[in-house]
Amino acid sequence: MFNTVSIIGCGLIGSSILRAIQNKNLAKEVRIFDLSKEVTTYLKKENICSYISTDIRQCVKNSDLIIIATPLSSYKEIILSIKDDLKKGSILTDTGSVKKEVMKIIHNINLKEINWIPSHPIAGTEETGPKAGHADMFKNRWCIISPPKESNEQPIQILKSLWEAIGSKVKIMTPEEHDEILSLTSHLPHAIAYNIVRTVINVEDKLKQEVIQYSAGGLRDFTRIAASNPLMWRDIFIDNNENISKSIDNFIEKLQELKKALNDKNGDKLYQIFNSTKELRKEIIKAGQDTNKPDFGRKKD
Amino acid sequence: MFNTVSIIGCGLIGSSILRAIQNKNLAKEVRIFDLSKEVTTYLKKENICSYISTDIRQCVKNSDLIIIATPLSSYKEIILSIKDDLKKGSILTDTGSVKKEVMKIIHNINLKEINWIPSHPIAGTEETGPKAGHADMFKNRWCIISPPKESNEQPIQILKSLWEAIGSKVKIMTPEEHDEILSLTSHLPHAIAYNIVRTVINVEDKLKQEVIQYSAGGLRDFTRIAASNPLMWRDIFIDNNENISKSIDNFIEKLQELKKALNDKNGDKLYQIFNSTKELRKEIIKAGQDTNKPDFGRKKD
Repeated sequence: MFNTVSIIGCGLIGSSILRAIQNKNLAKEVRIFDLSKEVTTYLKKENICSYISTDIRQCVKNSDLIIIATPLSSYKEIILSIKDDLKKGSILTDTGSVKKEVMKIIHNINLKEINWIPSHPIAGTEETGPKAGHADMFKNRWCIISPPKESNEQPIQILKSLWEAIGSKVKIMTPEEHDEILSLTSHLPHAIAYNIVRTVINVEDKLKQEVIQYSAGGLRDFTRIAASNPLMWRDIFIDNNENISKSIDNFIEKLQELKKALNDKNGDKLYQIFNSTKELRKEIIKAGQDTNKPDFGRKKD
Repeated sequence: MFNTVSIIGCGLIGSSILRAIQNKNLAKEVRIFDLSKEVTTYLKKENICSYISTDIRQCVKNSDLIIIATPLSSYKEIILSIKDDLKKGSILTDTGSVKKEVMKIIHNINLKEINWIPSHPIAGTEETGPKAGHADMFKNRWCIISPPKESNEQPIQILKSLWEAIGSKVKIMTPEEHDEILSLTSHLPHAIAYNIVRTVINVEDKLKQEVIQYSAGGLRDFTRIAASNPLMWRDIFIDNNENISKSIDNFIEKLQELKKALNDKNGDKLYQIFNSTKELRKEIIKAGQDTNKPDFGRKKD
């Protein structure tokens, strides 16, 4: 499918793309760039990739496809470093969770004859680093491609084929649509999960052990998301701050309504609130977006 | 261990207790009372229990242990119905998630020579009904026993032994401690999960399909809890409204702090917030209260 693919950043997502491409034989050569000595040492030790570089310009030279899989705040520096070494006609993509700010960066840098087509695979776990990556990470998961208006059709199709070849279902939408939808399905849930854990661990120390012991009553579900990579999430929140801020306002408004019903001991209203949310899970399961096993199919012990 | 155990309400929890007691041969006879025809038909069809009654007074007569496993709002009527038929010296317990209001009811009814010792197994899933119950439901889960101050030691120890025999770890604490801790570990998380799903499904209809499709970015984790039994949760919120209301206030205060950092694009503060919550998950896993597998060990497809 490709002669050369270069992956910038080989953490959870980058290393999963690397493994998936190799598994399916989708490129003659995959090149890796990562600044972290820990990452490159791991990759060498595991012999996962034959081309591991700490020279980013060399890494992207003559590549057909360059995939940035680093936190959003590093994009500008990366793109400025590589822009003169990108091959004409090559495809430049990423895996980031917000598109708006990136579009501005690319617009200002004004890449010539490079096909900039952002991607966002809705995949990953709460873990970080290449050790946690695996070739099946994108299997049956959605990947959103958000091409700029002026994009050519052919490179969009090539990129789409790559994501499909490694198991994803692909949806094409505008960067604006992407950022709005993700603020609801991913960024607000992360804000809330981080916030609930912070609320609970801020209670007096005397309760800390109890909070841990009895977390199976609900809290533990939130701690998974609240254990995600803080650097990555800092960048997402800064880049999508307007959409997220609006979602938080809507959330607080609804929570005030719930609190009023609670303080009024209004059983009918509480029942109505708690009964209104059951259907969504069924639809998510029907759409293949979660397991249908109770308790996420958690092992019993 | 017992001659006769009576279980009032044979849904997810009641039927799991039934199965666990039978599995371990802890009683010569277990009797079931349930008002729902659907439930009794299922129990008969599956031949899970030989004594299924729709006469609650008959069901508890001469029983050594009576377990109420129904929504909190039904307790008063149940206890008033059975109080004259309870055997002297028998143990009366429950499985409810709030203790304060129940203590008041029992105090007002003034049961004589009955050992009222409330229990709360921290177990269950988002499912309801006897079909979803199973004998291992309480294995390695905590059960909190909250005896009134005047309780005798012997019946507390008998009840503790029962929960331990069906796999639970038992902790004894006051009803006040119980209600405060559970408001943090279970009731606040449920309020928040219901609320986030309600916030998201209230966005314009045009986004509904997208919200479902891309829910794997975080939202789906919350939809599990928000699919729990609305009647049960209505009762919990009414009975523990003061503690929950206080938790919601603390939650909103923290969320306003997060929103300020977001609006100010204060990267350092956001990083500090997102980095402060990582440890709790590790401690929960270390305490054996959740799986250590990424993504809850969800199946890939």
